[in-house]
Amino acid sequence: MSSALLTDHYELTMLQAALRDGVASRRATFEVFARHLPEGRRYGVVAGTGRLLDALRDFRFGERELAFLRENRVVDEPTLEFLSGYRFSGDVYGYREGDCYFPGSPILTVEGTFAEAVLLETVVLSILNHDCAIAAAASRMVHAAGPRPIIEMGSRRTHEMAAVAAARTAYLCGFASSSNLMAGHLYGVPTAGTAAHAFTLLHDSEKAAFRAQIDSLGAGTTLLVDTYDVAEAVRTGVELAGPDLGAVRLDSGDLAEVAYAVRAQLDELGAHKTRIIVTSDLDEYTIAALAAAPVDGYGVGTSLVTGSGAPTAALVYKLVARQDEEGVMRPVAKRSVGKPSRGGRKHAFRRLDESGTADAELVTVSGERPAGSRPLQVELVRGGEIVGGEPLEAARERHRLAVAELPATARQLARGYEAVPTVFDE
Amino acid sequence: MSSALLTDHYELTMLQAALRDGVASRRATFEVFARHLPEGRRYGVVAGTGRLLDALRDFRFGERELAFLRENRVVDEPTLEFLSGYRFSGDVYGYREGDCYFPGSPILTVEGTFAEAVLLETVVLSILNHDCAIAAAASRMVHAAGPRPIIEMGSRRTHEMAAVAAARTAYLCGFASSSNLMAGHLYGVPTAGTAAHAFTLLHDSEKAAFRAQIDSLGAGTTLLVDTYDVAEAVRTGVELAGPDLGAVRLDSGDLAEVAYAVRAQLDELGAHKTRIIVTSDLDEYTIAALAAAPVDGYGVGTSLVTGSGAPTAALVYKLVARQDEEGVMRPVAKRSVGKPSRGGRKHAFRRLDESGTADAELVTVSGERPAGSRPLQVELVRGGEIVGGEPLEAARERHRLAVAELPATARQLARGYEAVPTVFDE
Repeated sequence: MSSALLTDHYELTMLQAALRDGVASRRATFEVFARHLPEGRRYGVVAGTGRLLDALRDFRFGERELAFLRENRVVDEPTLEFLSGYRFSGDVYGYREGDCYFPGSPILTVEGTFAEAVLLETVVLSILNHDCAIAAAASRMVHAAGPRPIIEMGSRRTHEMAAVAAARTAYLCGFASSSNLMAGHLYGVPTAGTAAHAFTLLHDSEKAAFRAQIDSLGAGTTLLVDTYDVAEAVRTGVELAGPDLGAVRLDSGDLAEVAYAVRAQLDELGAHKTRIIVTSDLDEYTIAALAAAPVDGYGVGTSLVTGSGAPTAALVYKLVARQDEEGVMRPVAKRSVGKPSRGGRKHAFRRLDESGTADAELVTVSGERPAGSRPLQVELVRGGEIVGGEPLEAARERHRLAVAELPATARQLARGYEAVPTVFDE
Repeated sequence: MSSALLTDHYELTMLQAALRDGVASRRATFEVFARHLPEGRRYGVVAGTGRLLDALRDFRFGERELAFLRENRVVDEPTLEFLSGYRFSGDVYGYREGDCYFPGSPILTVEGTFAEAVLLETVVLSILNHDCAIAAAASRMVHAAGPRPIIEMGSRRTHEMAAVAAARTAYLCGFASSSNLMAGHLYGVPTAGTAAHAFTLLHDSEKAAFRAQIDSLGAGTTLLVDTYDVAEAVRTGVELAGPDLGAVRLDSGDLAEVAYAVRAQLDELGAHKTRIIVTSDLDEYTIAALAAAPVDGYGVGTSLVTGSGAPTAALVYKLVARQDEEGVMRPVAKRSVGKPSRGGRKHAFRRLDESGTADAELVTVSGERPAGSRPLQVELVRGGEIVGGEPLEAARERHRLAVAELPATARQLARGYEAVPTVFDE
């Protein structure tokens, strides 16, 4: 499918006006950055870069797209002519997927003609604003869960395709697996699942349901034990599967209290290795609150796919430099009240102290690499060719390292401020 | 694209276990309902039905889907065999798109074998939970705006495909148009747009930018006037376009204050018909707060696509009845703590008082139509065949009437309770 119409109407009408007066071919630099992090978060997480490169590859105006634009008189014929030959031929630099960011971090830089670069604004922001919002929440949940695995299972709580992106993002941030099969198919995310109450209710008894599940999926399966009476269900499960029963899932009640009771019962029945998985509207705070309880894994749904209170990341795509009438690149910035922007193409570095801990986000126009810092942008697209693709596993490992590199305060769950300051050199 | 993998892993493993022990072919009834409305809302809005019927049509396990499931050992060969021939052959009833709902309203009823109906859970909930969440917010914004039109422009703040669904939903609820071109292409939503700050910044002067826009798009265009100095921009705009300038857009500052000043200035310049469009993180409350200001239209982005604080609708898909071993349909319900469900296939009616105002949501197992009520469910799918498709315009008109039918308290913006009670006959 072409991604070209995942675009705001005004990008095309601006293009039309710019083509007509000749400025469309001016070289331009757009930057993606956030003026602030999601409220109370201490770091942002770059996510969506891989999806963005896919969307860029598929950004073509084919016959159907052009016919729609013509029939609805969105733009004039010269503009349609331009669009029919549209291929992004510029350069894109960006933070690597999984790395952290802070207010003002230039997480993506798009360089090309105004015409080719302005058209990408909407789809670039859609992808990054969604995926970065999910990532900011996912990363905190992974930290709250410590060594215990989390299954992502929020597909049913968000748009069906957003669900796939959320599953990908959760895995990138350290979730163990996802329930979403499309995320397995498209991105290789490991998929997993337990059983629903409907499966138990379908059978004439809970025992019949458990027997069917164990017969078909093996003793290592996870039984959902709260459809009727938890203690009875646990007894039945161990009776049928023996002490090799894989896990039981708790989806209601005071999870800590129920987990203690179920752990004691399982141990008494000799099922010492049977794990306890808890679900039911968990978020990073309730995960953390269960740290002391005998829980072996978490399933997280709604709060993951909705960014745990911050469903969008507030990233913007701003023109920061463009050629003037003499062909010289000039920094530009609007002066709108309360929405500060800084002109000029920026470079970014994470400054590390002697121990290797991040202590500042350096954003410079000069581009010179300050001592004791690592560069944050890499080349993603060169002359229209995608050069920054990578396996999702690479981004997952990077994220682990990027969070570990931040000062300890970054990992506090309580609301607070950015873990490191952004320092501009202007 | 097949929608079949927009599905949770466990739907397929439950299917496998049910196929193996023979209960997969039991007739089953699933219902979609909400235990509560989004916090503080007084009515819910059914949205997504049209998209759901599209997804049902495309729910097929083709070669690629089956190869993925086989390679990843999600299910066994007999289950793959079943899936390769999967066609939903059951019946679906539901509230009509655009109608209102309340806690417990059976907004969708899926009847078929357990096997065929359980597989639809994830994609049904993804679509309805997303679209109903957007609709609940959109409907309130439309009421807050009164006769003034609202442009939906939130695409960049949400997942790129969720954006298309949000645009469709906003239009269904009474928005005038959307910036999202794909929503125009797929659903016939009218598209519209103004211009971005980048267009002004691209030019060597604001005047050059305005001239280019007017030359290309006509005097009826909307100029964005807050890139530098609003008063100067307004003066320049009217100077170039004359009193026929279509509109100016304000995107920053205290919008009411700026709107008064701009209105006075436009009138002084003789541009009495030039409209004032305001944007900048508007939601239903800030729209209402601008009711007295000289504003002619609103653009709404972030708050629309994120459901204005409630990005998901809490709808669930529950087994409420199924055949027992003797083939008799039996109501079923789980007893999980704090998550009440009612067994049995429900019917629903909106009771109206003498004046035609809704005063109760009647949910009955008997199915008998109470006097002075209108039935809420219609047939959407009969024996696997889609019979409930309709133009988006029909749902848009229905929504207008459905909100008008509610008591006045339903339209209050302040947080509160359901506008009418749900009455069960059990």
